[in-house]
Amino acid sequence: MSNPHKQMILGAFIPSAGYMSAVWRHPEAQSDLFRDFEHFRRAAQTLEDARLHAVFFNDAVNVDADKASLGGSPTSVRWDPLVLLPALAMTTRRIGLIGTASTTYNEPYNLARKFANIDHLSGGRVGWNLVTSLGGGENFNLDAHVLHADRYARAEEFYDVVTGLWDSWQDDAFVQDKQAGRFVDAQKMHVLNHHGEHFQVRGPLNAPRPVQGYPVIAQAGSSEAGCALAARAGELIFTAQHTLEQGQTFYRDIKQRAQALGRNPDHLKILPGVSPIVGRTLAEAQARYDHQQSLLDRPAFLRSISRFAGLGFDLSELPFDSRVPLPLEPADTNGHKSRQKLIVDLIHRERPTVRELFNQLTAGGHRILIGTPQSIADDFQAWFEGGAADGFNVMFSGLHQGITDFAERVVPELQRRGLFQREYQGQTLRENLGLPFIANRHTL
Amino acid sequence: MSNPHKQMILGAFIPSAGYMSAVWRHPEAQSDLFRDFEHFRRAAQTLEDARLHAVFFNDAVNVDADKASLGGSPTSVRWDPLVLLPALAMTTRRIGLIGTASTTYNEPYNLARKFANIDHLSGGRVGWNLVTSLGGGENFNLDAHVLHADRYARAEEFYDVVTGLWDSWQDDAFVQDKQAGRFVDAQKMHVLNHHGEHFQVRGPLNAPRPVQGYPVIAQAGSSEAGCALAARAGELIFTAQHTLEQGQTFYRDIKQRAQALGRNPDHLKILPGVSPIVGRTLAEAQARYDHQQSLLDRPAFLRSISRFAGLGFDLSELPFDSRVPLPLEPADTNGHKSRQKLIVDLIHRERPTVRELFNQLTAGGHRILIGTPQSIADDFQAWFEGGAADGFNVMFSGLHQGITDFAERVVPELQRRGLFQREYQGQTLRENLGLPFIANRHTL
Repeated sequence: MSNPHKQMILGAFIPSAGYMSAVWRHPEAQSDLFRDFEHFRRAAQTLEDARLHAVFFNDAVNVDADKASLGGSPTSVRWDPLVLLPALAMTTRRIGLIGTASTTYNEPYNLARKFANIDHLSGGRVGWNLVTSLGGGENFNLDAHVLHADRYARAEEFYDVVTGLWDSWQDDAFVQDKQAGRFVDAQKMHVLNHHGEHFQVRGPLNAPRPVQGYPVIAQAGSSEAGCALAARAGELIFTAQHTLEQGQTFYRDIKQRAQALGRNPDHLKILPGVSPIVGRTLAEAQARYDHQQSLLDRPAFLRSISRFAGLGFDLSELPFDSRVPLPLEPADTNGHKSRQKLIVDLIHRERPTVRELFNQLTAGGHRILIGTPQSIADDFQAWFEGGAADGFNVMFSGLHQGITDFAERVVPELQRRGLFQREYQGQTLRENLGLPFIANRHTL
Repeated sequence: MSNPHKQMILGAFIPSAGYMSAVWRHPEAQSDLFRDFEHFRRAAQTLEDARLHAVFFNDAVNVDADKASLGGSPTSVRWDPLVLLPALAMTTRRIGLIGTASTTYNEPYNLARKFANIDHLSGGRVGWNLVTSLGGGENFNLDAHVLHADRYARAEEFYDVVTGLWDSWQDDAFVQDKQAGRFVDAQKMHVLNHHGEHFQVRGPLNAPRPVQGYPVIAQAGSSEAGCALAARAGELIFTAQHTLEQGQTFYRDIKQRAQALGRNPDHLKILPGVSPIVGRTLAEAQARYDHQQSLLDRPAFLRSISRFAGLGFDLSELPFDSRVPLPLEPADTNGHKSRQKLIVDLIHRERPTVRELFNQLTAGGHRILIGTPQSIADDFQAWFEGGAADGFNVMFSGLHQGITDFAERVVPELQRRGLFQREYQGQTLRENLGLPFIANRHTL
């Protein structure tokens, strides 16, 4: 019982492409989500009505498919979260708005500025999910994707530059004294003069300080470099953890790392991802899930997972109910390190059949919770009270039904148990998350 | 009478910093425009009610002032147009939304994507004002601003990459056949594979084709390189012209250049900038103007203009009603070439007093029209029917009164004369401007 008196944080993952995996084929799936904003407006408003803390959008800066494998993929085109966020700032009032943006394929000045602006636009509701991207070099003047270690070194410095730029102006710098003709107190402007390994940025930023001091920083890297960055800079930590024990270990590890760096461990909120499939009965939930799975191109998915995780064999060529052979340890690839390791570990630990592995992995490596509002609430409660989570990043598939089921059935059950808020606690995302306002370094 | 049966185009310049020059000191000026979106929402809605074609936002990617001269400037912080546009897409329904973005300090993939997304968000109402920026290198890993010639060479290639990326997917590529499991027709995806002097971009873009084919391209460069780019790529041409004759010369020149490149000259719309000061009588308008001018820090403005235009003497040290001496020809500086030349030419041509020059230049180099709705409409009509303009970029100062005066007094006068639309002509900005949809190069 690490948090006996607290309530859990719930974020909502909404795919920026519109859909997760094959859900676009569902009879109830609306077409054209990649160019129809109405879906996003409706989803965010439903989740705001249910008092979720934030909506969260993933991103990618390339099309990761060749013509041969492109046909069935709904993720070749997706919304830029930095376009969705200002639009949602206008169409919601209280819910937090968290967008993914790459430190590898942006310039810190441009990103610092946009997040500062969106924080004002939304009244202090914005968060930045800082990622180094899984690919994209080919679209940014490079022959290949930047190497993992270089990406994280750049990310660390990128974070320093962005936060330094956010402190360019003290919060009270803009005096706007009409009589004296004094718009700004120049003594409260601070030039950054950053000269680093990756960046040379003078500043000041041409945007006022964000409402929240800094937007909330989310981080999802689970590699060694990713955990180090999360411990230093992360405030919301998204993670894929499969068992309660794994969750507890990760939770303790990240909080201890943060504490070792002098941070208050309560100022990092650990949110494992879960994909809920809700039914009135377990049988109804299971049937919904089975239907969703039947929409997948199973051979294509298994081939792609085999390649992605570097298993050394092709899962699609094995009988579906046979046990998966033990793979080699993952090679040192330049992609999504922690996810590859997760798959290999899972095979070693659980010795699943191909079917079992398929079902686990189709949720993008996250846990799938198939059940009733009660059983899902039980699971959330066990993780939350068991010290494995400060809350959850609830992953939605793109079906509006999935969002309303969660909002109208699971959330009330959590509220009834006293585990989830019935009202927002403050005005800004920081206030709602129990995170402190960040004071300007120049006023300390 | 070059356009006897057509109606003029009216765009509205709204400063992204909130205010033009010293207007923030006006008793009616609202404070905090740089962080209060409400002003922009209200301005855009008022102009939409008046059926203006578009609102237009300028930009800069640095703070162009040292601590000593910073105090009185309201432009050190400003909204990023790429944040304003998505927000205005939600709060307006018909008016075009044109944002400035730099080709010097962005990557083409990121910009192509955002404009494609915003075009969908707004139902095809977006435009991109392509600029090379007046400064900013110090914030983007450089020791100084990129040189003028290099900026324009990069801009030309940037335009090619962005438009190539917009053609990544044919308009009907996303078949979304649920039964067949076919989301996209891979044959309708096109890889750009650009290898140029400044950029190496493979593509495809991870965004669907813009609603308009391409967003409307606006261009404001008036240097030789700027005119060449405008003639090749520009569709809305913003320009500063002081006399009807100058306007006619510029109009003919750009249209002829475009024609020489094989373009239809009707597909470039020339919009000189004008700053209207409207009164019920000329005396009332003049009083309003005089009040506005009295808010300026005259010595600071004159010093800054002397430096900017490289006059070789300090205007602030001359008696206010004395004639300005003849300056040297402008040195080959790396800034706003056409504006510098405009100031020097103006001194040579008009031999103004310091007061006259001050009054002309405080409108940012654009014409100031002080008058009644009738006299302002007379001027617009003379330029429009005299072959000097397809319409105007009407420059507002940040006072809401200035916008409502124009919308509620000048626009009805133009409509009464049959010179301006009473209703939008189509759905997209292109349709409203009489510009054609741009077909995908791969479907031709």
